[in-house]
Amino acid sequence: MTLTVYLAGEIHSDWRDEVKAAAEGLGIRFTAPVTDHAASDDCGVAILGAEDDKFWHDRKGALLNAIRTRTALEEADVVVVRFGDKYKQWNAAFDAGYAAALGRPLIILHPPEHDHALKEVDAAANAVAREPRQVAEILRYIVEGRLP
Amino acid sequence: MTLTVYLAGEIHSDWRDEVKAAAEGLGIRFTAPVTDHAASDDCGVAILGAEDDKFWHDRKGALLNAIRTRTALEEADVVVVRFGDKYKQWNAAFDAGYAAALGRPLIILHPPEHDHALKEVDAAANAVAREPRQVAEILRYIVEGRLP
Amino acid sequence: MTLTVYLAGEIHSDWRDEVKAAAEGLGIRFTAPVTDHAASDDCGVAILGAEDDKFWHDRKGALLNAIRTRTALEEADVVVVRFGDKYKQWNAAFDAGYAAALGRPLIILHPPEHDHALKEVDAAANAVAREPRQVAEILRYIVEGRLP
Amino acid sequence: MTLTVYLAGEIHSDWRDEVKAAAEGLGIRFTAPVTDHAASDDCGVAILGAEDDKFWHDRKGALLNAIRTRTALEEADVVVVRFGDKYKQWNAAFDAGYAAALGRPLIILHPPEHDHALKEVDAAANAVAREPRQVAEILRYIVEGRLP
Amino acid sequence: MTLTVYLAGEIHSDWRDEVKAAAEGLGIRFTAPVTDHAASDDCGVAILGAEDDKFWHDRKGALLNAIRTRTALEEADVVVVRFGDKYKQWNAAFDAGYAAALGRPLIILHPPEHDHALKEVDAAANAVAREPRQVAEILRYIVEGRLP
Amino acid sequence: MTLTVYLAGEIHSDWRDEVKAAAEGLGIRFTAPVTDHAASDDCGVAILGAEDDKFWHDRKGALLNAIRTRTALEEADVVVVRFGDKYKQWNAAFDAGYAAALGRPLIILHPPEHDHALKEVDAAANAVAREPRQVAEILRYIVEGRLP
Amino acid sequence: MTLTVYLAGEIHSDWRDEVKAAAEGLGIRFTAPVTDHAASDDCGVAILGAEDDKFWHDRKGALLNAIRTRTALEEADVVVVRFGDKYKQWNAAFDAGYAAALGRPLIILHPPEHDHALKEVDAAANAVAREPRQVAEILRYIVEGRLP
Amino acid sequence: MTLTVYLAGEIHSDWRDEVKAAAEGLGIRFTAPVTDHAASDDCGVAILGAEDDKFWHDRKGALLNAIRTRTALEEADVVVVRFGDKYKQWNAAFDAGYAAALGRPLIILHPPEHDHALKEVDAAANAVAREPRQVAEILRYIVEGRLP
Repeated sequence: MTLTVYLAGEIHSDWRDEVKAAAEGLGIRFTAPVTDHAASDDCGVAILGAEDDKFWHDRKGALLNAIRTRTALEEADVVVVRFGDKYKQWNAAFDAGYAAALGRPLIILHPPEHDHALKEVDAAANAVAREPRQVAEILRYIVEGRLP
Repeated sequence: MTLTVYLAGEIHSDWRDEVKAAAEGLGIRFTAPVTDHAASDDCGVAILGAEDDKFWHDRKGALLNAIRTRTALEEADVVVVRFGDKYKQWNAAFDAGYAAALGRPLIILHPPEHDHALKEVDAAANAVAREPRQVAEILRYIVEGRLP
Repeated sequence: MTLTVYLAGEIHSDWRDEVKAAAEGLGIRFTAPVTDHAASDDCGVAILGAEDDKFWHDRKGALLNAIRTRTALEEADVVVVRFGDKYKQWNAAFDAGYAAALGRPLIILHPPEHDHALKEVDAAANAVAREPRQVAEILRYIVEGRLP
Repeated sequence: MTLTVYLAGEIHSDWRDEVKAAAEGLGIRFTAPVTDHAASDDCGVAILGAEDDKFWHDRKGALLNAIRTRTALEEADVVVVRFGDKYKQWNAAFDAGYAAALGRPLIILHPPEHDHALKEVDAAANAVAREPRQVAEILRYIVEGRLP
Repeated sequence: MTLTVYLAGEIHSDWRDEVKAAAEGLGIRFTAPVTDHAASDDCGVAILGAEDDKFWHDRKGALLNAIRTRTALEEADVVVVRFGDKYKQWNAAFDAGYAAALGRPLIILHPPEHDHALKEVDAAANAVAREPRQVAEILRYIVEGRLP
Repeated sequence: MTLTVYLAGEIHSDWRDEVKAAAEGLGIRFTAPVTDHAASDDCGVAILGAEDDKFWHDRKGALLNAIRTRTALEEADVVVVRFGDKYKQWNAAFDAGYAAALGRPLIILHPPEHDHALKEVDAAANAVAREPRQVAEILRYIVEGRLP
Repeated sequence: MTLTVYLAGEIHSDWRDEVKAAAEGLGIRFTAPVTDHAASDDCGVAILGAEDDKFWHDRKGALLNAIRTRTALEEADVVVVRFGDKYKQWNAAFDAGYAAALGRPLIILHPPEHDHALKEVDAAANAVAREPRQVAEILRYIVEGRLP
Repeated sequence: MTLTVYLAGEIHSDWRDEVKAAAEGLGIRFTAPVTDHAASDDCGVAILGAEDDKFWHDRKGALLNAIRTRTALEEADVVVVRFGDKYKQWNAAFDAGYAAALGRPLIILHPPEHDHALKEVDAAANAVAREPRQVAEILRYIVEGRLP
């Protein structure tokens, strides 16, 4: 079984690299949103022209990012969503809801202090992990049937 | 055209009543999550038995609430999601993502200060409103073709 | 058999009234886009606030109209699309494509001079009619099995 | 992320070549309708036999072209639709509607003078581009996360 | 449980009346194709204009009939297909295949001499009945849980 | 919110009546398989003719019952599956799997001694109840938002 | 564009070989039912054990053949259905209906004498061909955009 | 035709090896659940942390196993489900129901003594086999059209 795994959510830590490193050798194809925050914010106007109004500046960018995000969510066999310490992260929760409605198995990765606030998201998931290492261990178990 | 409209998100203000009052006479059927916060938090253990671990206490409740929420999202012709001032509101964003993946038209209701944080959610929506009254005006326009 | 029939396309003639009059007594529920051209153009800014840029003025309105249009297309058992003499009418062709992908049976109504330009649209349809009266006759045949 | 991108619409300019040239090295698989206008018009009768009536001559051809078009739309990860200066181009709008109903991300490519007439089509799209180069830049951003 | 049951196939005997009479009181809504053979053959040209070529004469009619047939197949909870003694009845087999792909439960009604020729159709069905009375008995059992 | 609830599984106790009694006044429409064991076993041959081979005797009956069961599962907003003390009850587990794949919310009702054997089924469910009364309380909470 | 094309219908002539020979070099992957008539009739009992009753003998075989047929229909980009001179060929019409409901483009291949009997099947198709050579020419046009 | 075949059910005998050995050379890709019983029971707590309550211990594991199982069921062209002599095997029946709702062709493998208890499961299947060898023979017939 070869898997495509989409790593959604937090873009300000190196959790994706940790998962990938720990999952080496499993033959998994990892996908992700654009993790360059500035590029992600400004892609719309950079390519399609400036906007006076910040609202439409943001809209243009968000719509471009959605092409990548939706395509990756549709293609994924498993979707991992990381909630970190900073920002509102409504985008991460939106992706989790989108993946849930598509029937994609979800792994949610977050510290225990978010447990109550994320209870509806966690309840839609197949696993709630605390560490990137655990995500990789889950993937190893799914692919190879081997425990850590 | 008769509509079923699901009013998702914030449960600590009376925005649902405002929308309903302003939409009176349109023949719209409004649905909503359980808005009694305590009941929503404790329904799982109240019905199915106590849990020592808060994580599973929350899980039991969230899974019950999901029956109502998912059924209502599936049935809805239009989904309105309100982001207020308090709490993380990941649940609201999750519902928005879920509705988007189902292809339900979305109206997002939030103050301008959340514009940047909600840009991906807004980009999936057909309208971003600031006031409950505007939501009702949109619904009136959809149903009757009449502007305010 | 009771039908819901969506009457898409041209909004500058009274063809919808002709179809409805000729189909009286069949128990058909007819739906339609907002046919008040000015309201349809300005609904977005009228409800959600003005825009400096005409592009976003139009976007806001088009997104509101899409709530009504998509809901009606999804609900319809049969979709009729009228191409008239004026305007580009890309919206009408877009609705026809949308309905075709949803598997809704299509009746296209247009004068013979558009035959070549509409050949791909017509090829996706169950009927190409020239007169509103013929649309009603088709609906009568479908519902009652009676020829004119 | 490897993409299949369907380039729909105008067949009388070299915009497809411009997009492809500017997107070189991205590993994108581009698909397109048959762009030989005469072949596209006459394929039906050339293969399946002549028709006296131009209407059925057109129908036979349009149905053959639809095999290619629908297959390509279904397969595509992203659909680009170009509206040019000539002809009615209802076919282009039909393809856009079809792609939208399938949930395919849309990039619409057209000059500003069509903005108002295409507002419903644009509102269903993730991007409105003016130049083929911008389409390629969007694709580069989606695939590589790199801005121009 | 109230059912909508589509009675497809043979139009030259009174089997539909027999089923309906025997199923009286079950609250079932029965639907059917147009069973007036001449109307069914000529509806296209009668409404939309004559054709010189019999092939297109037939096409116009078949496409109109398909509006009713497909709508009824989509709406049906159960599809009954009757194969009689006359004609090729490819239309009946086509409807059976269409219903099977939609996941509609099938009851096939035919005399034993067609068993071998219909073995693939029968294998997709939930029941093979010999008499209209048996169809009604099946429907009674499904609705009321009562055996004859 | 009005619900259709399918009560699957065990047919040798009066648990369905208990659920219905406790859910009185909620306006729920309850559906169920045929619960007359003998009729359920013999319906096929009783209506369609005897079989020498018990395997085909069973097949004929199971296919008839499937018409009712699948229709009810498709129509249901919520599916309750009861596992009792007797028989293999593979049919109950099959229905649970079928409902899960359709995305229907599941409530599983069984005594604690089956917990380990039913862990995969329970993991697909929104609630695991021990008593019919709890099922009714869940339904009351979903419909009215009221705790017991 | 690479295509998978399922060649359904008649198994008593060499039309499949003719299509394949004429389509050489197009890189098309052709699939087909089992065309060994005896094997197709007896596969069920040959593998799973004899049946006294011819009806169940046929059922066992038809269900095995359906695994291959349905899988191939689902996988196909284009479905060709050949109606020949012999037998009832309800199986061919059933496959055509099944493919139509799945939205697969259909090419029907039959002599003109079947035109009236096949009018509903033809009306669901993108092309009606008379000769295997024409099927290959259509496929060549779809893949390469080249006319014969 | 290359197939992906999921081998569900019993994990305490070597039936999977028998099927694979007998199907050698057919180019089939076989998938399976994790067949190490201890790993399958404890994977959840081994990776994500211990639980005091056996119910949640089991839940954590079952949800991880479901990622593999559901992914494999979705990917499979054919699903084989083996019912053996031991345990309740509700999991096997659940997988069969899940596969049936997805429209995957089913082969059920079990001894005759389970015939009556499995009649609803068998009725949803394309074949009921007694020996692993027969499963391989069916697969060979589907892939190569050759009888044993």
